[in-house]
Amino acid sequence: MSLFLTLFQETPVTEAAQVLEQVNGDMGMLWMLIAGILVFLMQAGFTLVESGMTRSKNAVNIAMKNLLDICVGSITFWLVGYSLMYGDTSNGWFFWSGLFQGEGADLFFQTMFAATTATIVSGAIAGRTKYSTYIIFSLVMTAIIYPISGGWQWQGEGWLTKLGFIDFAGSSIVHSVGGWAALVAAFMVGPRIGKYVDGKVFEIPGHNQILATLGVFILWFGWFGFNGGSQLAWGGADATAASNVVLITNLAAAAGGLGALITTWIWYGKPNLAQTLNGTLAGLVSITAGCGNMSAGGAVLAGLIGGILVVFSIEFIEKKLKIDDAIGAASVHGVAGVWGTIVIGLWGIDGDAGIGLFNGGGAAQLGTQAIGALAYGVWAVGLSFIVLGILKATMGLRVTKDVEIEGLDISEHGSIAYPGKRQREIEGDK
Amino acid sequence: MSLFLTLFQETPVTEAAQVLEQVNGDMGMLWMLIAGILVFLMQAGFTLVESGMTRSKNAVNIAMKNLLDICVGSITFWLVGYSLMYGDTSNGWFFWSGLFQGEGADLFFQTMFAATTATIVSGAIAGRTKYSTYIIFSLVMTAIIYPISGGWQWQGEGWLTKLGFIDFAGSSIVHSVGGWAALVAAFMVGPRIGKYVDGKVFEIPGHNQILATLGVFILWFGWFGFNGGSQLAWGGADATAASNVVLITNLAAAAGGLGALITTWIWYGKPNLAQTLNGTLAGLVSITAGCGNMSAGGAVLAGLIGGILVVFSIEFIEKKLKIDDAIGAASVHGVAGVWGTIVIGLWGIDGDAGIGLFNGGGAAQLGTQAIGALAYGVWAVGLSFIVLGILKATMGLRVTKDVEIEGLDISEHGSIAYPGKRQREIEGDK
Amino acid sequence: MSLFLTLFQETPVTEAAQVLEQVNGDMGMLWMLIAGILVFLMQAGFTLVESGMTRSKNAVNIAMKNLLDICVGSITFWLVGYSLMYGDTSNGWFFWSGLFQGEGADLFFQTMFAATTATIVSGAIAGRTKYSTYIIFSLVMTAIIYPISGGWQWQGEGWLTKLGFIDFAGSSIVHSVGGWAALVAAFMVGPRIGKYVDGKVFEIPGHNQILATLGVFILWFGWFGFNGGSQLAWGGADATAASNVVLITNLAAAAGGLGALITTWIWYGKPNLAQTLNGTLAGLVSITAGCGNMSAGGAVLAGLIGGILVVFSIEFIEKKLKIDDAIGAASVHGVAGVWGTIVIGLWGIDGDAGIGLFNGGGAAQLGTQAIGALAYGVWAVGLSFIVLGILKATMGLRVTKDVEIEGLDISEHGSIAYPGKRQREIEGDK
Repeated sequence: MSLFLTLFQETPVTEAAQVLEQVNGDMGMLWMLIAGILVFLMQAGFTLVESGMTRSKNAVNIAMKNLLDICVGSITFWLVGYSLMYGDTSNGWFFWSGLFQGEGADLFFQTMFAATTATIVSGAIAGRTKYSTYIIFSLVMTAIIYPISGGWQWQGEGWLTKLGFIDFAGSSIVHSVGGWAALVAAFMVGPRIGKYVDGKVFEIPGHNQILATLGVFILWFGWFGFNGGSQLAWGGADATAASNVVLITNLAAAAGGLGALITTWIWYGKPNLAQTLNGTLAGLVSITAGCGNMSAGGAVLAGLIGGILVVFSIEFIEKKLKIDDAIGAASVHGVAGVWGTIVIGLWGIDGDAGIGLFNGGGAAQLGTQAIGALAYGVWAVGLSFIVLGILKATMGLRVTKDVEIEGLDISEHGSIAYPGKRQREIEGDK
Repeated sequence: MSLFLTLFQETPVTEAAQVLEQVNGDMGMLWMLIAGILVFLMQAGFTLVESGMTRSKNAVNIAMKNLLDICVGSITFWLVGYSLMYGDTSNGWFFWSGLFQGEGADLFFQTMFAATTATIVSGAIAGRTKYSTYIIFSLVMTAIIYPISGGWQWQGEGWLTKLGFIDFAGSSIVHSVGGWAALVAAFMVGPRIGKYVDGKVFEIPGHNQILATLGVFILWFGWFGFNGGSQLAWGGADATAASNVVLITNLAAAAGGLGALITTWIWYGKPNLAQTLNGTLAGLVSITAGCGNMSAGGAVLAGLIGGILVVFSIEFIEKKLKIDDAIGAASVHGVAGVWGTIVIGLWGIDGDAGIGLFNGGGAAQLGTQAIGALAYGVWAVGLSFIVLGILKATMGLRVTKDVEIEGLDISEHGSIAYPGKRQREIEGDK
Repeated sequence: MSLFLTLFQETPVTEAAQVLEQVNGDMGMLWMLIAGILVFLMQAGFTLVESGMTRSKNAVNIAMKNLLDICVGSITFWLVGYSLMYGDTSNGWFFWSGLFQGEGADLFFQTMFAATTATIVSGAIAGRTKYSTYIIFSLVMTAIIYPISGGWQWQGEGWLTKLGFIDFAGSSIVHSVGGWAALVAAFMVGPRIGKYVDGKVFEIPGHNQILATLGVFILWFGWFGFNGGSQLAWGGADATAASNVVLITNLAAAAGGLGALITTWIWYGKPNLAQTLNGTLAGLVSITAGCGNMSAGGAVLAGLIGGILVVFSIEFIEKKLKIDDAIGAASVHGVAGVWGTIVIGLWGIDGDAGIGLFNGGGAAQLGTQAIGALAYGVWAVGLSFIVLGILKATMGLRVTKDVEIEGLDISEHGSIAYPGKRQREIEGDK
């Protein structure tokens, strides 16, 4: 009778459990797909932020670079990137499973991350970089630099995973890698004409702060997919976890915006739009690593500090290092990316347990986070120097002085962003 | 044997039913989270509509106000707002459960509603309001004014819920509260210089109608989350109901756009873009309360009348009341919000039963809807007068005449939205 | 005992299976609803592409046409369109089930497709077409032309379905129908003043390539819903299939962008933004029919060829046919639409089986695809000629020469897109 009961009971249990497992898998796929679609739109956000924050004479070039990143990135990450990042054969540092790996929602979602990494570089070197050179660099970023180091952590057998390093959605893996590459690129290409004259630093304003604002809102919107989708699942505890990720991502962004707003109000005397936008993005980057390991209060604090930090970092890189990062990409993605990685070691949690130093977790996690942040920095800086060094010696990095002054749009692409004015002169129209 | 059978059968039934219940909860959470993400993007929509419909010299200020609303709103609604709206301790008028209540997808979704309410005010008082004063008002809106009255209906124990008042997604709770606050604020701040001169009314045109159009499309897009997500669930009857909500939300918006388009064609002699945009938004506001209690035909009629009404209301407030609501927010959100609340009492349905007067439901629902609409009006007008009165007596509401003429962007924020022209003069570039 | 066991076992199996079936239905509805919301935003994308690629003096008119398409389309498709497309009574060519058919997520999703078809025409005839005439044509498109021929394939009993024709998401049904109508309309309305003078072809540039770029990103974003949602289901094999559709849609778009970028680099000497944008859209159109029947590699090749083709097609229509299609709609949607339909017969697959000629599938599928593409071409060209012919003979298609030169915005709508400059002259402001 007892055996009988067991037999009968187990059958339905298994049946229902199988349904639950299947449905959880399907819901997870739905969430990842939608999240990937949200992340895709970040390319539009980057285009608007980068073109809005730079001169109109280079806006076509910015659009062409951002289009290129998603076009090239989609192809190369499918061709080799996914395999280099998630392949089977590995020593913990390099992975490979052959060409054309990955499929469906997973490959789609991961592709968007690769394209994002490349796009971060594009704005920093705006206004003076050869388009042909940029193509090669974008290609190398999405095909090699990003996927190899990404595997260290996100492939389950990577050396950083095994070390206990935490980077939930990529403060280091995506943003700091992009940010450091942007810094190296801005240094190697050199400043725009008129940026540093006779030891003085001149501001080169953007041309459309409303487009930049729209861009930041779109990035914020896409970031919910970027961080929330990194749960890679939905159903049961995963549903609650991913929802919480989205919630605290929003809180950190809000705090980052307020941090920069207040900082500029005190420092500049007025609340500044461009820096508030950067602060919001810095808040987002600051919670990207820790959004699975942070309380709401911890997220607010992480974002707030990120938003304050980015204002000082932009001033420091521009005025002390005298590197002309045209839109502050190295600060927003690099510096805030490192901060977002480190903060897990300060007040991170794991479930209900404190893993950060100030949460009673000891210094071990902090050390691990520092090692990871350092590893990504060394990798991104090193590889960028090598690749850009080769490009400089062969194709050249920079357009001529005449082309730069005229604007890259005409020389590099044969058209301008706002042809209205010239046309009006020709046809005498309103 | 019969007991035996019952035992055996109940076990599997329970098991499968448990799975269904769990999955329905998870799907509901997924839908609410995605809906909240859509509602978030409405902040970008408001920024574009408000800046596009006002002068470019104040566009940075508009962007800073909209950024502030979501940044401050996210923090305050998490800090106190959620608790004031959904807390346990209550007499039906005020709720409270302590600081930092709410979590996950629910808090995220509700936060976006609070931020929306604040943002409605921002456009109406464009071009002459102090930024520091606006911050305080935005903070009070998201922390106190909106959540307290929101609880009257959306907390299950609120006095309006118990009265049988219906406001599915917030025609009254969100939009009319924002709209009435906007009207009071526009009145208290006073008209822009040049709006009313020697008894004449002058139009102060916006600076970019394409951005305004994009903004309306983004608002419409986000509204599907606003209304559809207010089902707060997915699965079974909830899935069908939420889908229907989205469908009729679209129909009402379409009818509202056509209503305004046709009205302006007849009245002005030409189909007007700005009013068609307002009509679309009015159509959306008009169905926001009733989208769970309206047939498709009823939604079309509600939206159509909302779209017609908004044109007359804007003219009335501008020319008869002589209140300078810079973008028509009081009409779009306040007047259409009241209309959307009342219309449920006219041709609302509940399942297959008519609850509106013209659907054979009697006058009871209509009376209840009127009481609710009135309550939100009194609350929003009263609180706004008090808060703005205090602010006027202390910090002051308005910038100086010189600042207003120069534009708020330079004085309040130290930068302009489109720096291209000045820069071009400096560097002699194209 | 054996009967006993069967009885007991079947009950739980059925129970769990019922739950799975219900949940799959609910997940499918969720995906279709979200996909429909994404498709809705394509209206914003079209507005930006069309206004950005044409003169600013007609931008209000473009916005009014795109708003009209979604407003009128939502009403008419609900009123008659759905019934004409998916009705029961039929001979395989015409369907009908009475007025006001369709409901919920399904009607919402299908409505967005109807509005898209109408919108494709709007850009081609920009700058010289009467608004009143456009309204009638848009109405006929969404109410009659699109739904009748759509039923041939998407209603399960349509003659093209029975023939074995494949058009998963509408390369022919939506895009080629819109594209051919655009070509006929551009031909019938005639070229803009200044386009062809003394046998020479002049370029009339757009006014804002950044808005056009944003528009393409938004279209690309919405297209994931357009193609992915056309799976019409989620759960099990449907989840995998829909995810794959989104993945290869992205690959084809990327390849299309690269195809046009490289083509213009070789041909014009410089990588051109406007054509790269068109190439991306052509890549998307090229995979719209086959996204359920194509390998990733096949999708890349289809998109690449689509992106190359569109550059030549635009030049051919503009310079050889001398039809002034202001934004290249006939090439992007018509030519690439036919290509996307035909390519299934070349290297399409069905599950693991090759159905295309080069995949060992024989010529039968290719012939069927050609018949379908031809049928949609004949239908769209024929009906457009008839409807526009009647409109030309009655209301007239074209504004006067003075109105065209001044811009349609002032004469047709009484306002301009960017009123800043005039206002600045009046008030002497910055």
